[in-house]
Amino acid sequence: MPDTDFAVWRARVDAALAAALPDANTAPQRLHAAMRYAATDGGKRMRPLLVYAAGTAFGATLDALDAPAVAVELIHAYSLVHDDLPAMDDDALRRGKPTVHVAFDEATAILAGDALQSLAFDVLAHAPADAQRRVDMLAELARASGVAGMCGGQALDIDATGGAKITVAELERLHAMKTGALLRASVRLGAIAAGVDASTRARLDTFADALGLAFQVRDDLLDVEGDSASLGKTAGKDAAQQKATFPALLGLDATRARLSTLSDAMRDALAPFGAQAEALAALGRAAVDRKH
Amino acid sequence: MPDTDFAVWRARVDAALAAALPDANTAPQRLHAAMRYAATDGGKRMRPLLVYAAGTAFGATLDALDAPAVAVELIHAYSLVHDDLPAMDDDALRRGKPTVHVAFDEATAILAGDALQSLAFDVLAHAPADAQRRVDMLAELARASGVAGMCGGQALDIDATGGAKITVAELERLHAMKTGALLRASVRLGAIAAGVDASTRARLDTFADALGLAFQVRDDLLDVEGDSASLGKTAGKDAAQQKATFPALLGLDATRARLSTLSDAMRDALAPFGAQAEALAALGRAAVDRKH
Repeated sequence: MPDTDFAVWRARVDAALAAALPDANTAPQRLHAAMRYAATDGGKRMRPLLVYAAGTAFGATLDALDAPAVAVELIHAYSLVHDDLPAMDDDALRRGKPTVHVAFDEATAILAGDALQSLAFDVLAHAPADAQRRVDMLAELARASGVAGMCGGQALDIDATGGAKITVAELERLHAMKTGALLRASVRLGAIAAGVDASTRARLDTFADALGLAFQVRDDLLDVEGDSASLGKTAGKDAAQQKATFPALLGLDATRARLSTLSDAMRDALAPFGAQAEALAALGRAAVDRKH
Repeated sequence: MPDTDFAVWRARVDAALAAALPDANTAPQRLHAAMRYAATDGGKRMRPLLVYAAGTAFGATLDALDAPAVAVELIHAYSLVHDDLPAMDDDALRRGKPTVHVAFDEATAILAGDALQSLAFDVLAHAPADAQRRVDMLAELARASGVAGMCGGQALDIDATGGAKITVAELERLHAMKTGALLRASVRLGAIAAGVDASTRARLDTFADALGLAFQVRDDLLDVEGDSASLGKTAGKDAAQQKATFPALLGLDATRARLSTLSDAMRDALAPFGAQAEALAALGRAAVDRKH
């Protein structure tokens, strides 16, 4: 029953995050408080859930998965803090709460993001796994976070904002880097912790790549179809900023059809694993069906 | 002859950095160009030199030291890019050149710093060393970069700017974290690559801690005594910003005496190693004697 698993896993990663983050009562308090504010604000924990789902599907223990689950969430949290900065997306609201630079200040937000990134690697370096698996996980997370992944995708996104022309293939590459790389890394970290073979890993990559793209296609649709209250952020912002989106390039109908194709691709990739991959499949469906 | 070694080592780390950084002719070009601008601008390469000096003193090959040398310089470069941002120190000039957010833009500077940090861990994760040594180096660098090191020290520094009262002990702790942690990590990464024993490591820590503090004491003195042209940055800025400094807390004479004590501590820590640690000793003297 995945819903029950998800609640248990969310509670696990929340507890592990709380333990990994620095104490807000020790100096520098403001930095520590900002890091906790950014990382423990009740997000969906999509990336940690992918770590637990991929890991447990192939025999990893929950104890072996807490550190990678925390690490991917810390990277995600840092990226949101920096993306929201005035010089970047300039967002004042995130998940219905003031963003970090609004609740604290800009310097603290920059530093908190920096320190959250360092902490992700710190936590992984101390994971309860043999050295080779830890190095494999660290290499994967570093690659997914940097120029070949999240940071590179964010830079492509900035280049594509403000009405610059971009093709659908370029938009897909942008998202494969900006959001896809960390989602894929989440699945891979679970798989590394479980010690899966190369063919399983390839199949999981296919699933994760479809999931990452579906996640973003759904995000674009929500910005058009949703309202700010249920999103917890400002709706309609993509069009106002002339962001390149799938609805803008393909139209709404073709975008919905693309989402359906990606949903099929996820199902096909996981089919050989049967019930063992049910939690991963449920996370795939959640990415497609989500309302916020 | 350390001077010759230093020139060779600088050339090595510059070549290794150029190879590790992303190609400025591939997308996203602006991000890649900013990362290269930040990391290949002819700094003193103090941290890489410490890696090479500590490593070769205890038998590591130069080939084993390139990756950690690159990694510590990438962390240093990212920290300068973020420290110079308008919301932080708001510096327009660094080593006589426009800072990254001036030469490019603020969003690119934030992202370039983020990606430089990721790249440091990426490079270390792929170092030519067994998995256990790589994990040990990654753990050390992550700890030195985060809340317990550089980021935490920067936050303490912000808290201490603008006239807040601070003791000499608090100022020393601030600098031990802000600049000392990465200098110590540089020595430690070289030592890990060489596989030194625990007592050698403890002695090297003593040397590195004295070096880190001496480096900052000298920095404070240069801000009072130096001029902007030879510094390559704005002199007298500490006093203008009411920064806590050693000269402000101790006076100039006692600050100079403190530097002399630290110099003796470095010499004593390295004494048992004799000529084998000559390059480390020379770097310690350079930190004390430097004019910029």
